[in-house]
Amino acid sequence: MKPYYAVIFTSVLTEQKKGYETMAVAMETLAEKQPGFLSFESARNELGISVSYWESEQAILDWKQQLDHLKAQALGKSKWYDRYTIRICKVEREYSFSR
Amino acid sequence: MKPYYAVIFTSVLTEQKKGYETMAVAMETLAEKQPGFLSFESARNELGISVSYWESEQAILDWKQQLDHLKAQALGKSKWYDRYTIRICKVEREYSFSR
Repeated sequence: MKPYYAVIFTSVLTEQKKGYETMAVAMETLAEKQPGFLSFESARNELGISVSYWESEQAILDWKQQLDHLKAQALGKSKWYDRYTIRICKVEREYSFSR
Repeated sequence: MKPYYAVIFTSVLTEQKKGYETMAVAMETLAEKQPGFLSFESARNELGISVSYWESEQAILDWKQQLDHLKAQALGKSKWYDRYTIRICKVEREYSFSR
């Protein structure tokens, strides 16, 4: 397996959810167009967990600095997120099961 | 930051959900007692994402082979999971925001 990278983004939202879902979808669509993007998956109850997968650490750094993404990050901090943690991980191995 | 490890477990359940939630809670409780366990977080919509964090790869291997966990894994494959992917990751860096 060629090594690749995962960004684990866990978050809790504030009460002020207006505009969040639209922005989340827009950012997912934008991320998919970034060089080195592999895939994205997310689930949310009270806690939300989103994981994006990337070919390299550089691809993650480039995405972090993408201009529209920087604007979204600023809005997220000012309005939507009560707290979040971002972890940059190297995927060392994986295995799957399918029925 | 001392490096640590994450296990990203993504899954889709079958229609046969009886017993799943009880077992999921039991396994989380058991994992928390394992040497090297750090923390656990999960969210589920159609897709479920659970992430457990561990001090070392050895702690992850030990948990994978724990006897009650092996039984739960077998039940999971025979009954509850339509598909899953497990990724073993090294957490290289992290940052957090809190309001």
